Amino acid sequence: MLRLLAEAAREGVELIAYPEMALTTYFPKKIRPDFDQFFETEVPPKALEPLLSRAAEARIAVHVGFCEKAEGKYFNTALLTDRDGRLCGTFRKIHLPGTKAPDGFAQVFEPYYFAHGDTGYRVFDAAGAKVGIAICQDRRYPESYRALALQGAQIILVGYNTPISPLALDLNELCLRSGAYANLCFVLGVAKAGVEDGVELIAGSSIIGPLGQVLARAATTGDELVAARIDLEQMVSVRKRWNFLGRRRPEHYGLLLTPVTEREPHR
Amino acid sequence: MLRLLAEAAREGVELIAYPEMALTTYFPKKIRPDFDQFFETEVPPKALEPLLSRAAEARIAVHVGFCEKAEGKYFNTALLTDRDGRLCGTFRKIHLPGTKAPDGFAQVFEPYYFAHGDTGYRVFDAAGAKVGIAICQDRRYPESYRALALQGAQIILVGYNTPISPLALDLNELCLRSGAYANLCFVLGVAKAGVEDGVELIAGSSIIGPLGQVLARAATTGDELVAARIDLEQMVSVRKRWNFLGRRRPEHYGLLLTPVTEREPHR
Repeated sequence: MLRLLAEAAREGVELIAYPEMALTTYFPKKIRPDFDQFFETEVPPKALEPLLSRAAEARIAVHVGFCEKAEGKYFNTALLTDRDGRLCGTFRKIHLPGTKAPDGFAQVFEPYYFAHGDTGYRVFDAAGAKVGIAICQDRRYPESYRALALQGAQIILVGYNTPISPLALDLNELCLRSGAYANLCFVLGVAKAGVEDGVELIAGSSIIGPLGQVLARAATTGDELVAARIDLEQMVSVRKRWNFLGRRRPEHYGLLLTPVTEREPHR
Repeated sequence: MLRLLAEAAREGVELIAYPEMALTTYFPKKIRPDFDQFFETEVPPKALEPLLSRAAEARIAVHVGFCEKAEGKYFNTALLTDRDGRLCGTFRKIHLPGTKAPDGFAQVFEPYYFAHGDTGYRVFDAAGAKVGIAICQDRRYPESYRALALQGAQIILVGYNTPISPLALDLNELCLRSGAYANLCFVLGVAKAGVEDGVELIAGSSIIGPLGQVLARAATTGDELVAARIDLEQMVSVRKRWNFLGRRRPEHYGLLLTPVTEREPHR
């Protein structure tokens, strides 16, 4: 992470995003009793001190995902600092994939470890932009991008850990691109890469523009800096022409608040 | 339309979908005073009698888009009949692209002609499936697919007229695929094709499966039957594994009902 930060500083990066659970392995692939070791009780985590202090020196805003333990609860969290090192705040992952125990269908077990995030969708000021955060499975819910865009998000950061499966990379990009286009904003998908505990992750970090087009994409399946210049002005012209947010008809969206009656029907 | 119906009957099709405004040209590309001629006052429109009677003989359910005039209002409407010819009902387009008059940005003027649809999102029983309808611009709103899926839609029909522009075909498929995947259901995009009044439309009709994959896609830029076998059982297995709908967190979606404060900010 320090190596990539140094590289980013040389390239003049203003905002760097590390993936979900950047400080640990993606342990929710298995049920294991020794998980407490992966959780941080301080925010920012002590382990991030060297990274965050060097980032502040280099005037780089930082997004990092980590596992947070707070008031006896466990969360899948991301923090954001601004270029001066100030902590903007945290977001706790709302949508948890998988089940609490193996059920023959789910292949990850986040609800076994994590409480559902209680921060709600939040937008922060960082690096001169309005920055929203979602985490991994949240990116498969169009509601995530919409809730952030309606709060003014111009850039949405999405860290993820996604194990390889035949369609995984394609569906990841589908979600990120459609979230950007539906809201005419920028979306950054930030992947954990490589093999962890025998599980290969999909990588595929990418930066998507407000017309849903990929501006930059990882070239490798390993750790790599993916950088692009984000021109916030681009949003102005596409929003003038398309104005999806301004032509919403919320009087017809009440159904989206329908309570979930069958939270985990396969257990 | 009759020729395509005959072809569909020979192929054993159970449900056929014709595009938005299938009975007229896509006139909202221009402001013109003579539009009343395009609107139907009967539902189903008299002009559809031959089509709908032959479809009922062939036991084919039918979706058709048309312009509807009712109680002095003008709507962009689609109807659905079941295989026995029974009218299931209509849906009136909710999201209207463009502005009421040229503004230098918008290139279509649907609000000049149409009132915003007042039926809400509706799901019908047809051809042994739960069938939802959205029309053209509605497909760019993730809320459309979600509102239909939450009512049990297994197949979502989306007729459209979309003029050619550099990204239009790509963004069309992005919307249809992401709507299908986010809700793990089938989506049919049904395009008007060819050149109308000097404007070339994007065509690109396609049938999308519940994992967002294109099952069938138009091979030409003209009129063409695009057919695929839809196996509703496929939804069961993908929903068992992914269960996006069952893991929604509507307590965080209230923002989606935020009133639109700037309906058309560029006029």
